[in-house]
Amino acid sequence: MEQPIRIAIVGWGNVGRGVYEAIQKNPDTRLVGILTRDPARTITDVRARRCNINPSSIRDAASWREVEILKMAVSPDVAILCTGSATDLPEQGPKFAQCFNTIDSFDTHADIPNYLAQMDSAAKSYNHLAVCCAGWDPGTFSIERIMALSFIPEGKPYTFWGPGVSQGHSDAIRRVPGVKDGIQYTLPINAALEQVRAGTNPDLTTRQKHSRDCYVTLEPGADPEKVRTAIVTMPKYFEDYDTRVTIETPEQITERKRAMPHGGFVMVSGETGKGNKALIEYKNQWASNPEATGSILVACARANYRMRQDGRTGAITMADIPPVMYHPLERAEVIKNLM
Amino acid sequence: MEQPIRIAIVGWGNVGRGVYEAIQKNPDTRLVGILTRDPARTITDVRARRCNINPSSIRDAASWREVEILKMAVSPDVAILCTGSATDLPEQGPKFAQCFNTIDSFDTHADIPNYLAQMDSAAKSYNHLAVCCAGWDPGTFSIERIMALSFIPEGKPYTFWGPGVSQGHSDAIRRVPGVKDGIQYTLPINAALEQVRAGTNPDLTTRQKHSRDCYVTLEPGADPEKVRTAIVTMPKYFEDYDTRVTIETPEQITERKRAMPHGGFVMVSGETGKGNKALIEYKNQWASNPEATGSILVACARANYRMRQDGRTGAITMADIPPVMYHPLERAEVIKNLM
Repeated sequence: MEQPIRIAIVGWGNVGRGVYEAIQKNPDTRLVGILTRDPARTITDVRARRCNINPSSIRDAASWREVEILKMAVSPDVAILCTGSATDLPEQGPKFAQCFNTIDSFDTHADIPNYLAQMDSAAKSYNHLAVCCAGWDPGTFSIERIMALSFIPEGKPYTFWGPGVSQGHSDAIRRVPGVKDGIQYTLPINAALEQVRAGTNPDLTTRQKHSRDCYVTLEPGADPEKVRTAIVTMPKYFEDYDTRVTIETPEQITERKRAMPHGGFVMVSGETGKGNKALIEYKNQWASNPEATGSILVACARANYRMRQDGRTGAITMADIPPVMYHPLERAEVIKNLM
Repeated sequence: MEQPIRIAIVGWGNVGRGVYEAIQKNPDTRLVGILTRDPARTITDVRARRCNINPSSIRDAASWREVEILKMAVSPDVAILCTGSATDLPEQGPKFAQCFNTIDSFDTHADIPNYLAQMDSAAKSYNHLAVCCAGWDPGTFSIERIMALSFIPEGKPYTFWGPGVSQGHSDAIRRVPGVKDGIQYTLPINAALEQVRAGTNPDLTTRQKHSRDCYVTLEPGADPEKVRTAIVTMPKYFEDYDTRVTIETPEQITERKRAMPHGGFVMVSGETGKGNKALIEYKNQWASNPEATGSILVACARANYRMRQDGRTGAITMADIPPVMYHPLERAEVIKNLM
C-alpha cells in the first residue's frame, strides 16, 4: 500500500471526535495533528483514546502557516475543519485554506455561494484544494437531490429529516426560561412519506412533513404549562410544527444525550415518457450523527488528496467529486468489483 | 440558453425509444439522428411520434465515419448506443467510439474491465469521450454501492432487484418447450429487506433474497405440469429460487408486456465508531424500465458533452462523473439551489 493520507483535525468537538473514529476505520488514512481551542482540555480526551498526538492551539490564524504547521510531527495532506458553521468557518475557513488542503461541513445553506467564493479564492492563491459543505446535508443529500432531479428531470424533490436529534432545536429549548436541560427529536411524518412513495406528488406543509418531540428538565419552581407554551409557540423553531413536550428527570436527559442519532430521506417523484411513474428514494439512518459526518468527511479527505494529486485547486463541493474518488480501492478495482 | 446538445440514437429498440422520450423531457438536448438496423421499419414508428428525422442504416461500421455521419442533418455531439450488450456492443462499441462521443449501457458485469479498455483505446485515438456501462444497474446502483461503502467503510452491501420484469428470465421461459409466450417478474423478498434494515447484517442465500413469478401461455396440447417442472428446475435461471408459474390467456400476457416496470434497492449496513449502527438505502421504482434507462442515458449525454468540452477523452463510467455534470442547470445554480 502507498503511504497513508495524513490528516489533521481542526476543532475537537463532536464532529472532530467523529473524524477521529472514522480515521481508525480507514487504514489508508492517518491522524498527524490536532488543532484545538483548548489543547490542555483536549489532551485528556486524546490520551484516553490511546492517541499520542499533542494537540496544538488554534490561536491566531495569521500565525498558523509559520508556527502551527511546524508543530505537527508530519505536515498534513488534508486538514478537516470541524469548528462551527455559524461563526467559526466564515472567519477561519479562508485562512485555513491558505495553510492546507481542507474539508469542511459548512452548512448555512443561504451563505453557501458566498462562502464557496471566498474559499475558492483563498485555496487557489495557495494552490490548495478545499472541499466545502461536506457531510450528509449538505453533502450526500445534496448530490442525491442533484442526481435524482437529473434522472427524473420534471420530478418533484422532497427532503425529510429524522428520526434524530437536532442540535439547533435542542439549543433553542434550553434557552427557554424555566428549562434546565433538554433535547429535541425531529420526526418525519409517516403519512407524508407514504404519500410521496405512492407517487401522488403532494404539496406538503411544514406541519405535514415533520413533527417535533422535546424532552426537558425544569428549573426548581418553573411552571410546566408555561414552559410547554413557550416552546410550542416559539417562532421559526416550533410554531409551524406539531410539538410534544415531555418533562423528564436529569438522568433521563443525560442518557438521551449520550446517543445522537439522526438521518433522513431524499425522494424525487415524477414520471418518464407519457405517464410512467418514477421514484428515487435515498435514506440514511445513523446511530451517531457526528460519527456519520466524520466518516463522510474522511472519505472526502481521500477524494481531496487524489484530486489535488491530479492538479485540482480551488473550492469544490461533493457535487464536483467523481464517486470513485471516495473509495479506498484503486479505480480499476472499484470498477471491477462494484460496477 | 446555449445551443442544445445534439444527440444521435443508435438502435431503435425499447431503450432507443426510451432515450427518444427522455430527449423530449430535456429541453437542452435535441435529437439529430437515428441509426438503426432496419430504417424502413423504424421510420413508421418515428413518424408516429411526429418526428421528421430519417433513420439511417447500421450497415458496415467501417463506413460510418465516412457515410453515416454525413447523412445526419447535423452531426451529433453525443451518440447514445442502444443496441444489445450481449453481442452488439462488444463488436460495435469500439467502432462507434471512433466516430462519436458515446454513451452505452453495457451490462455484462464480468466483461466490464475488458470492454472499458477497448472503448478507452478507441475513444482516445479519435479524441472522443465514451461513458460506458450507464443506466441503473450498472450505473446509478454502482455509484450508490461505491459511495455507501466509502461512507461506511466496513459496511456490508446488498443489492435487491424488483419488483419488475426481467428480460433475460422472460426470454428463458419462452424457450421452454410447450410455452407459447411468457413474462417473468423478479420480486425482492420483504423479510430479507427488513432483516437488512434492522441492521442484523444477515448472510442471505439466493433463495432468501428474491423470488420469481412466471406468467405463460401454452402451445396447444402442452402439459402444464411438465412446463411448470421444466421452468422451476431450470439451472441458473430458476432452480435456486422459489418460482411460481401461472398459466394465463394470450390477452393477459399481452397486457402484461405493455408495462415494463422494474426497480430495486442498494443497501449498505454497518457501523461507525464503536458499535453505532449505520444504514444507507437507495431505492428506485420505475413504471417503465427502458424509459428509466433512457432518462439516465440522456443525463449522461449532458455530462459527456460538458466533460468533453473540458478536454476529457477516453472511456469512463458513471463513477467517474461529478454529479453536478448531470444536471441541466449551470454549476453555480445547482449549488445555490440544491446543495
